[in-house]
Amino acid sequence: MLQFISMGIWVTGTRVSGSDSFLFWQTKGGNDYKMSNSLGRHVLAEMYGCSFDTLNDREKVETIMVNAALEAGAEVREVVFHKFSPQGVSGVVVISESHLAIHTWPELGYAAVDVFTCGDRVNPWDACNYLTDKFQAGHMTATEMKRGIFETQKEAVNL
Amino acid sequence: MLQFISMGIWVTGTRVSGSDSFLFWQTKGGNDYKMSNSLGRHVLAEMYGCSFDTLNDREKVETIMVNAALEAGAEVREVVFHKFSPQGVSGVVVISESHLAIHTWPELGYAAVDVFTCGDRVNPWDACNYLTDKFQAGHMTATEMKRGIFETQKEAVNL
Repeated sequence: MLQFISMGIWVTGTRVSGSDSFLFWQTKGGNDYKMSNSLGRHVLAEMYGCSFDTLNDREKVETIMVNAALEAGAEVREVVFHKFSPQGVSGVVVISESHLAIHTWPELGYAAVDVFTCGDRVNPWDACNYLTDKFQAGHMTATEMKRGIFETQKEAVNL
Repeated sequence: MLQFISMGIWVTGTRVSGSDSFLFWQTKGGNDYKMSNSLGRHVLAEMYGCSFDTLNDREKVETIMVNAALEAGAEVREVVFHKFSPQGVSGVVVISESHLAIHTWPELGYAAVDVFTCGDRVNPWDACNYLTDKFQAGHMTATEMKRGIFETQKEAVNL
C-alpha cells in the first residue's frame, strides 16, 4: 500500500478527466478515500431481440453509442463506425475512460456490446442500461470483468 | 436446429470475409460441417511488465495492433488510436471479424487488450500471443468469453 503511494503514479497518472484517479478517489461529499485493486471495469453485454432497422443503420447506431458514452458522463475522444454489406454495423467510441464497442447482427436482432471504463467517475452500467433501452432489447445479459488487477501489499499479522 | 437452418440467415448473413459463416464451417481438408452456438469469441488479456517506451508510443502501439490483426488473418476495416497526456495510448482496430482494442498504462507497464473475433477463420489467441510477444510482456493472463449465444433446439428424450 505504502509502496504504491510512494510511487506517486497512481494518483498523477490519470487518463480520465476530472478529479478521479486510478486507485484513489473521494467519495461524494466527503474526504474519505478508499482503494481498489483494479484499474477498470469491463462489461460485456449481449442484447437480443433488437430492431433490425436500428441495428442496420450506421448513423443510428453511432448516435446511440456516442450518447451512451455522454449519458454515463464519459469524455469522447474518437469515434469510428463501419457498415457491412449486406447488413451489420461495427463501431467503437474511444473515451478518456477507455471505450464502448458494438457489433450488430441485424438479421438476428442481436448486438454484442462492451463498455470498458477506468476510474470511478463513469459507471459502465449506466451506458449499458442506456443502450439496452435505446436498442429496445427484448433480452439482455451482461457480465462485468475487472481489468488490470494489481495486488496490494498486505500487512503481516502474527509474525 | 432445423429451425435455424430453415431461417437461412446463419449461413448467408456473413460479415467475415472468405468462405466462413457464423455457425457452419468446413473443417480443414474435408466436407465435415459442425455447429457452434456462439457467434464469436472475446479474449480479454492483461499484459503486465511491458516496456514503458513501447506502451507510450502511439505509432508503435498502432503498428503492433494492426500487425496482430493481420497475423491472425483478419481483414482490417478501420483503425483509430489516441495518445493521452502525460502518458497512455488507447486504440482500436475494427476488423471484418469484430475488433482488437488496447488501453495502455505505460507507467505501470500494463496493457489491457481485448480481441473479439466472429467466425472460425480467425483465432483471437493468435493475435493475443503475437501482442504478448511484441509488447514483451513479462506476465500475461487472459480469459475467453463466448459472445452471442443462441440456444439450439434439443431433441426430447424419454417423453
